[in-house]
Amino acid sequence: MKKWNVRAEIISVGTELLLGDIVNTDAAFLARELAALGISCYYQSVVGDNPTRLRGMLEAACVRSELVILTGGLGPTADDLTKETAAVVMGKTLCLHEESYARIRDVLKKRGLTESENQIKQAMLPPDAEVFANDYGTAPGFAMETEIDGRNVTMILMPGPPRELEPMFAEKVRPYLSMRSGEVFYSLNIGIYGIGEAIVGQILRDRMEEARNPTIAPYCGEGEVRLRLTARGESEEICRALCLETAEQIRLVPCTPYREGILDDYIFGIDTPSMQATLVSMLARRSMKVTTAESCTGGMIAKRITDVPGASAVFEGGFVTYADHTKISLLQVREETVLQHSVYSAEAVREMAFGAMRAVLADCAIAVSGVAGKEDLVCTANGKPLTVDAGCVYIACAVGNECRTECVTFAPGRRNALEAREYVRSRASAHALAMLIGMLKHRCGTETE
Amino acid sequence: MKKWNVRAEIISVGTELLLGDIVNTDAAFLARELAALGISCYYQSVVGDNPTRLRGMLEAACVRSELVILTGGLGPTADDLTKETAAVVMGKTLCLHEESYARIRDVLKKRGLTESENQIKQAMLPPDAEVFANDYGTAPGFAMETEIDGRNVTMILMPGPPRELEPMFAEKVRPYLSMRSGEVFYSLNIGIYGIGEAIVGQILRDRMEEARNPTIAPYCGEGEVRLRLTARGESEEICRALCLETAEQIRLVPCTPYREGILDDYIFGIDTPSMQATLVSMLARRSMKVTTAESCTGGMIAKRITDVPGASAVFEGGFVTYADHTKISLLQVREETVLQHSVYSAEAVREMAFGAMRAVLADCAIAVSGVAGKEDLVCTANGKPLTVDAGCVYIACAVGNECRTECVTFAPGRRNALEAREYVRSRASAHALAMLIGMLKHRCGTETE
Repeated sequence: MKKWNVRAEIISVGTELLLGDIVNTDAAFLARELAALGISCYYQSVVGDNPTRLRGMLEAACVRSELVILTGGLGPTADDLTKETAAVVMGKTLCLHEESYARIRDVLKKRGLTESENQIKQAMLPPDAEVFANDYGTAPGFAMETEIDGRNVTMILMPGPPRELEPMFAEKVRPYLSMRSGEVFYSLNIGIYGIGEAIVGQILRDRMEEARNPTIAPYCGEGEVRLRLTARGESEEICRALCLETAEQIRLVPCTPYREGILDDYIFGIDTPSMQATLVSMLARRSMKVTTAESCTGGMIAKRITDVPGASAVFEGGFVTYADHTKISLLQVREETVLQHSVYSAEAVREMAFGAMRAVLADCAIAVSGVAGKEDLVCTANGKPLTVDAGCVYIACAVGNECRTECVTFAPGRRNALEAREYVRSRASAHALAMLIGMLKHRCGTETE
Repeated sequence: MKKWNVRAEIISVGTELLLGDIVNTDAAFLARELAALGISCYYQSVVGDNPTRLRGMLEAACVRSELVILTGGLGPTADDLTKETAAVVMGKTLCLHEESYARIRDVLKKRGLTESENQIKQAMLPPDAEVFANDYGTAPGFAMETEIDGRNVTMILMPGPPRELEPMFAEKVRPYLSMRSGEVFYSLNIGIYGIGEAIVGQILRDRMEEARNPTIAPYCGEGEVRLRLTARGESEEICRALCLETAEQIRLVPCTPYREGILDDYIFGIDTPSMQATLVSMLARRSMKVTTAESCTGGMIAKRITDVPGASAVFEGGFVTYADHTKISLLQVREETVLQHSVYSAEAVREMAFGAMRAVLADCAIAVSGVAGKEDLVCTANGKPLTVDAGCVYIACAVGNECRTECVTFAPGRRNALEAREYVRSRASAHALAMLIGMLKHRCGTETE
């Protein structure tokens, strides 16, 4: 299959980036997108709102790359000079682009703002530019081409705010790049939990190396691994079919000798945005309600579930029972259980899960109790001191009358106290969500959106 | 006061950055730190693990900057070539640094790993380097100097993982840079809530422009503004005293004509890491317990409170009451209240707050109910349909018998559904924490750590 053979680079313009006031998420976003389109990117740079330094950087870029992507510095004020500088380097003059100007005035009117003198500056574009209208702000993006030393160079300019950049790229620039390369690209994600990136890499090594269409690339998230399949072809339908076919094959790959079973046992969803979204969608399909009883995770699991739009259909209420006595008073955990086993026990989380289910009449529950900090904890069980390891978390998931409990230790390692806390809490939340998804999967299969 | 007059630039090495697999938080961290040290940084770049391209970039950097800071590519494998390439450009040879080698072997031993052939590579350093030991990994950092075209150029190399880089910078590189510049730097943060960055900028404009020591710079966070005072001087004590003196003056600045009162009315803490940390510390000092009753924030406030180490001293339990009936059954909100005013009312959140306090015997409470989505919501009050605006949130804070309620609309604007949800929820959480801090401040004054 032919490939658009360009070397790309990303240049971000903004003094706020040089001062470290904001993190350059635009560059990471664009880099990921270019990689998915099969475009090689060799440099990323940041320069301030300084036309001399920007010009030097652009001239160097045009010598070593055929596709230069610029973000930022398209605002209406006098120090926004990205477009003006880029036009000089590309040998273009700027003219008023009537359509963009009308759009800008329209946006300002809707926001109840009056047009400033400078606003017209944002509508000045090279006459032969491919214009990308901005649906989330005033500055339009655009692409311009020129011949430099016998090579065709394309420059794409986009606004800096991610809220404007990301939809502009997805809806306008990506199709433009696909069109230039003569192909359509389509990506599909497979969400995996409970098996590390290194092992996934080992299990799929040959497959990933041989894969041409779709390509298979693993990404590491918070305690989860994402496989991204990217297909190229004539239409989205053809590409999606190729991805789904490969996803089916991947599901059945054995995990031996590293783990038992096949990869499907560790897949929480295909093309779902997050574990919590998978869970909410599984529960909604079965008209089931879930509740939460959280100790060390302190509301994190409820928060993750309610991050999902539409969560109210499956989640009516939950508990944060941080102190022992609230586990007893709010969730009817028996005092004997706490005395005998402590709150750090399978028995306690089991009673927390069923207590929460009874209290809000839910069909299933997640309960968590453990030590989030970096230090071991000493409590009492059967009248004797009991040491609970740092990072040791008991998790119970109940569905109807069935309840599974697990004790997992998330070793905080060399992290400082605050990071260790965050690590243990977020890993425990992810583990608990994956456990409940696993139980529900046996009832309704893997989620594919 | 004299100033170390260098132009700095930051170069990050790593193919994973070029592919967008990770976001370059190192560059933002270093940029912020350099700015605080008064060192001007004009360029940031990213290049892959490719010695030819890295060499070209380093040669260009040594011409335009006197301080070049490199991160990443210090690992033990053959494709980690940052150090080797930098040494060539700086005209240095690498020799075994015995102390670093002993440390590496020690770290590996503690982790139960055997030394690989390549490990010795990490201990090869220029003989005249200033070595920065790595307390969180194997690769040491270092600084080397040389004369290039009659200019003194310093290159600093540090490992890429933030967990290794950040403490190495804070504990070793920052003092080294302070020493080079012949001064000590000290920063103090002032946390402000309830007044935007633009207005803070207006109120303090003259003061910020005139400030020389300490300098005053505003940073915008999630619904909060941070003022960073940075003093330079002979010792940390002198610098801290200068910062505290300026902080005292800033507190008393009137907010007119933009807002009522003085800036202190909007300051939630001085040198506290977060609003939740301020709240936990205020409550701990007064031996008070807090509880939460959350509807649209769905556990976010409990999560934020329990993010703080030591939260268990002030937080014993909280409720996520997402559905109307759980507000009634768990928090004893009266059915008449819901029928008459709906759950989106000052009356409902007031009853939620007091209900939660009674249920877990807390001294104060935060209760929240509102519409997190992007769409207006229609519910019933007094038997008639009632439209609640998207982003409209009712918040109650109770301390003892006193209860304040507020209705705030966090307009989600042009965000998509998921972003709007996240925005409204996180802003409402911040607002609720600030409200309770405000009520407690009248009892125990502003927090200074």
